[in-house]
Amino acid sequence: MTATSTAAGSVAWLDALRRRCGTDVHAFVTERVREHFTGRAADTPAVGALPEFVTGGKFLRPMFAYTGWRCGGPETAAALRAAASLELLHCFALVQDDVMDGSARRRGRPSMHVRFARWHEEQGLSGSAARFGESAAVLMGDLFLVWSEQLLHESGLDAQALARGRPGYDRLRSELAVGQLGDLVNDARTLPSWADVLDVIRRKSGNYTVRRPLEFGAALAGCPEDVVAALGTYGGLLGEAFQFRDDLLGVFGDPAVTGKPAGDDLRERKASSVVVLARDLADRGQRADLTGLLALDEVDDEAVARWRELITATGARDQLEKLVDERVRRALEAIDLVSLPRQAADALTVLATRCTERVR
Amino acid sequence: MTATSTAAGSVAWLDALRRRCGTDVHAFVTERVREHFTGRAADTPAVGALPEFVTGGKFLRPMFAYTGWRCGGPETAAALRAAASLELLHCFALVQDDVMDGSARRRGRPSMHVRFARWHEEQGLSGSAARFGESAAVLMGDLFLVWSEQLLHESGLDAQALARGRPGYDRLRSELAVGQLGDLVNDARTLPSWADVLDVIRRKSGNYTVRRPLEFGAALAGCPEDVVAALGTYGGLLGEAFQFRDDLLGVFGDPAVTGKPAGDDLRERKASSVVVLARDLADRGQRADLTGLLALDEVDDEAVARWRELITATGARDQLEKLVDERVRRALEAIDLVSLPRQAADALTVLATRCTERVR
Repeated sequence: MTATSTAAGSVAWLDALRRRCGTDVHAFVTERVREHFTGRAADTPAVGALPEFVTGGKFLRPMFAYTGWRCGGPETAAALRAAASLELLHCFALVQDDVMDGSARRRGRPSMHVRFARWHEEQGLSGSAARFGESAAVLMGDLFLVWSEQLLHESGLDAQALARGRPGYDRLRSELAVGQLGDLVNDARTLPSWADVLDVIRRKSGNYTVRRPLEFGAALAGCPEDVVAALGTYGGLLGEAFQFRDDLLGVFGDPAVTGKPAGDDLRERKASSVVVLARDLADRGQRADLTGLLALDEVDDEAVARWRELITATGARDQLEKLVDERVRRALEAIDLVSLPRQAADALTVLATRCTERVR
Repeated sequence: MTATSTAAGSVAWLDALRRRCGTDVHAFVTERVREHFTGRAADTPAVGALPEFVTGGKFLRPMFAYTGWRCGGPETAAALRAAASLELLHCFALVQDDVMDGSARRRGRPSMHVRFARWHEEQGLSGSAARFGESAAVLMGDLFLVWSEQLLHESGLDAQALARGRPGYDRLRSELAVGQLGDLVNDARTLPSWADVLDVIRRKSGNYTVRRPLEFGAALAGCPEDVVAALGTYGGLLGEAFQFRDDLLGVFGDPAVTGKPAGDDLRERKASSVVVLARDLADRGQRADLTGLLALDEVDDEAVARWRELITATGARDQLEKLVDERVRRALEAIDLVSLPRQAADALTVLATRCTERVR
């Protein structure tokens, strides 16, 4: 096979995985909703919103987990369901993050708390609709967290495989919550240091999106230590690159493609890598301008445009693009050093591109 | 043994259980905190607040779960740890409920979100301290939810026992979140019907506090169906009685004993059983007065006193006391119909009293 046809084969394989994961989690959530939202609870927006929410994602974490599994295990529907459980964990994180960040939209649709707040208004309920929406969304997030773990232990994998995967799965879950706390603290500082930003990226997005899912899948399959170590190195590096890309999209992304407002991270004053790097690279005049933008009560379209220009002018955008390339290169080198099944190695190469050259 | 010495023996046994559960969960949470709150995260109030939060509870749910286990299993440290996992689930529920209800205090201490909000202020961080506190508390709740399940599968029980307990544990977790949503909806209605209140009580507190923990413990031990059914009946009835008592304390409780403000449920406009029953039993004049109180922007001490008098005058307080007695009587009858180990049967009798004659 030529390199191109290998890549095409992997893309097709990963796309098939994504569809099957989508079908699995949608069916599982639909069943859980039918089981628990009975009586009066059936009248709430949860019944429509929960199954709908789990569709339309990129399913990166299940794809990494299943690729990790394929480094040592055969293709099985049970392992794919176990991998898919990470998508529900991701839904948990998204729903609660949107509450904390006050994000009104998610995947081009109103976010969970907005949906519940609107329902509160439509029903003419008393009290604050916004507050009701937030509380309800937190609960929907809790359900996704519970159901993720339930899907894992009901995946059909045997007890030994599950026992091997548990420590990684548990680490991932705790790191996610602790990392999100770190995010909150960083966002509340008048700009954290680059070191603090990298620390949270490693804990949260980096580990959570690539490294831990890969390690989790490899552990389920009982892969040898050197393979797990190589996947860990790849995952750590690619995870950082993934988050740098995410941060670049949060500032420069096209709203028509990302499904989020232009310059969303700037409007929410996220202390993201690109914002902090711009501060570090800025000259005196630029730094004064950046400080002025950070102090704005409301960040409108014009401020977003000015902020973007400033960030580009400091060189932070180019610098971060270089960091992305460098991380991806080193990540691919790491997996080149161990012997992996062809399908897994090809998929890791395609996923590296998919994580870092994406536009949404 | 006389009835009194039997009761004394059970009380001592239950008190020992509570202490051991307290030690187990405190040690487990302390370990998890040490594992995950490293680097900058170690500076947050989580490090002190998480282990502290798990102490000082009544440990009712672990006691019911372990008593359920003892209906079919021997005394083992592993089963006690599995039972103790329900206390961490309870901590999850308390922390997030306090955010949703805006409760400033819990167990005589500032609640989790208040602790984090104060820390935000002390550190001079930017943005809203209240909002930061709430987001951080939601995350601390998430950690308790994750750690509950982790303590369960690391309890030391074998895979068969865990597999038997899983469906009940999962049902309990989902019911809890769905029940809390029902609570939110009921509180947002201009007073739900008595049927709606009972529905949420059954889903949430009743099932969650007594019935599901008992069934969970009995399932772990592999108890026969008739025993599980009898425990289910006992649990359903006692759970309702427990919540009626809780609702009475939320209106009439002594703040020095409950650790919460006097008439807390009235101040938070909870659509609790006693409030709804008072509405149903009120005559025309009383109903107008109750409606006036419900419409107040702020419920001060004087309003609490008037509201209490009105509720008592409608007969709702006496009526609810009767319902408590009736539920307890029927619960004890249900377990009298099956043959249970003496220790378990005695404990269930003592726990019925403890749940319904308590003052906090």
